[in-house]
Amino acid sequence: MNQQFKNKQILLTSRPVGLPTEQNFEFKEIPVANTQDGQVVVRTLYLSVDPYMRGRMSDAKSYIPPFQLNEVIAGGIVGEIVESKSDLYKVGDKVIGMLGWQLYNTVDAKTVTKIDESIAPVSAYLSVLGLTGLTAYFGLLDIGQPKEGETVVVSGAAGSVGMFVGQIAKIKGARVVGIAGTDAKCEYLKKELGIDAVINYKTAKNLGQALEEACPNGVDVYFDNVGGSISDAVMNLLNDYARIPLCGAISSYNSTDGDMGPRIQTRLIKTRSLIKGFVLSDYSARQSEGLQELGKWLTEGKLKYEETIVDGFDNVIEAFLQLFQGANLGKMLVKVSDSE
Amino acid sequence: MNQQFKNKQILLTSRPVGLPTEQNFEFKEIPVANTQDGQVVVRTLYLSVDPYMRGRMSDAKSYIPPFQLNEVIAGGIVGEIVESKSDLYKVGDKVIGMLGWQLYNTVDAKTVTKIDESIAPVSAYLSVLGLTGLTAYFGLLDIGQPKEGETVVVSGAAGSVGMFVGQIAKIKGARVVGIAGTDAKCEYLKKELGIDAVINYKTAKNLGQALEEACPNGVDVYFDNVGGSISDAVMNLLNDYARIPLCGAISSYNSTDGDMGPRIQTRLIKTRSLIKGFVLSDYSARQSEGLQELGKWLTEGKLKYEETIVDGFDNVIEAFLQLFQGANLGKMLVKVSDSE
Repeated sequence: MNQQFKNKQILLTSRPVGLPTEQNFEFKEIPVANTQDGQVVVRTLYLSVDPYMRGRMSDAKSYIPPFQLNEVIAGGIVGEIVESKSDLYKVGDKVIGMLGWQLYNTVDAKTVTKIDESIAPVSAYLSVLGLTGLTAYFGLLDIGQPKEGETVVVSGAAGSVGMFVGQIAKIKGARVVGIAGTDAKCEYLKKELGIDAVINYKTAKNLGQALEEACPNGVDVYFDNVGGSISDAVMNLLNDYARIPLCGAISSYNSTDGDMGPRIQTRLIKTRSLIKGFVLSDYSARQSEGLQELGKWLTEGKLKYEETIVDGFDNVIEAFLQLFQGANLGKMLVKVSDSE
Repeated sequence: MNQQFKNKQILLTSRPVGLPTEQNFEFKEIPVANTQDGQVVVRTLYLSVDPYMRGRMSDAKSYIPPFQLNEVIAGGIVGEIVESKSDLYKVGDKVIGMLGWQLYNTVDAKTVTKIDESIAPVSAYLSVLGLTGLTAYFGLLDIGQPKEGETVVVSGAAGSVGMFVGQIAKIKGARVVGIAGTDAKCEYLKKELGIDAVINYKTAKNLGQALEEACPNGVDVYFDNVGGSISDAVMNLLNDYARIPLCGAISSYNSTDGDMGPRIQTRLIKTRSLIKGFVLSDYSARQSEGLQELGKWLTEGKLKYEETIVDGFDNVIEAFLQLFQGANLGKMLVKVSDSE
């Protein structure tokens, strides 16, 4: 009966060297897999493209296994149940899960989670009430531990994680300095999110000096989404006992030249600072706590979120590649189809 | 009455650029300061020269203020009370303190601490029962937290801190890999201290490969005393959730070229590892716990210590400079005078 649906999927066909290109991927039309007992068919509504996925396209050891060649790429997806052989879901339910980049996923019902449209629109479960909101929440509060009046610097401040880092730091009473790559993003951060000071790293004549002016009391927490020369500059301003949650290093993901920069050890010793890499799965036991807090702030109007939505499954790769040009304000999503 | 003692002191007369030279220092003969009520005169027996002091010779922000120009340099000293106007000490008592690099220090009695020669010789209070033993103890156990069967790598393994790091890690049941700069040091680590594997980084054809062979199960804890290219190589072998206590970066202290190397952020994210700079004073509240444990291991014969002793106050600067050539096995001390 699945013949009513035509499926299309995206395969990784070669491993990128440096920046990925369309040539590393292939679109393939196939029939939708038949459902077994306990399974559901999920039609993709929104699909999340994220910088961390670049890591999975390489064949290197990391916290999640690399994508396999000639297999479908997987990521965060919200979708709608269009067929169900499970008591858990009925047709029309909205769910979220780590699913394949395809129009339809036939999966065990237990691998997806139901979402509540009364709290927020479905796409929000791919950002503020999903991976990126939770990543900001745990990285900032567990590792960064900002205290009232402290200075928090966040790079990639208008990105899908950074946007929540700045707002949560403000909620906790910190002074927040955001670094972003366009004037429009900087303006958004200041006007819409109330970030205290913003720096456009692309137009700043001297990033170090701009940071120094924006952080007259030094830096207590640096939430690092980007790595590279931006992070080099922040390191010079660390206060004693600074905390640095390492969330991403997008500037290094496509590096093929060894990613050289000034070593940071001496600075960390002098300031007795802490750096810690983390991924959201480190906090899976506390996920409901995070979702509860984020949902509360959202309904109280304390937390805003923003989406950059690219339309159409055929544009998934382009949307993914745009991440590395910093094209997105907030979460970059692809709208694949409308709810029925 | 202090005219019976002739004092001599060492001043910092200019700030070193790169490696310090004898020209940055000056010896000066002066009378011993008269004692006021509550003060004592301490004759220097042993004087400690330490890599961290290089930092204080520069004018940069750090965890302790820089040495002032044309003032006496200060560091760890064990000495003997030769005159007392305090009830706390009588002539002949042995004490330890942060005192000036001079033959005699006239100081408030409260600024020094009595030492117990029945547990260990006086010089041991400048190493195993002093700053370096405690630094190893807290850095390794509080930040590194080695577990039984884990792999602990220590750089500067035959140095004044590293020597204790390796031994304490062994006491805790870890497999220990030591990196040092001479075959004699490596042999000492293996034969005398029971370190599981050793690498002479100066003669290793390929340090990365040597490390890989020495750490077949990766690296869980890296106690970093040296920074620079040695640390770069260890970063490639981190296991998930590795812990890196940053104790020193002797390879960078005299660097004038920006100390460039591969950035470590991506590796820390992929392995969700932690790096933390620390100094011993972070643990001052727990000092007696540390001394008790170290003293227990010492009397049980589980902890050995080694000293490289240079003779004579006139050779203090030379001894200090030798630290940067790695001339010392264990703690580098200068014997200034005999006990009376």
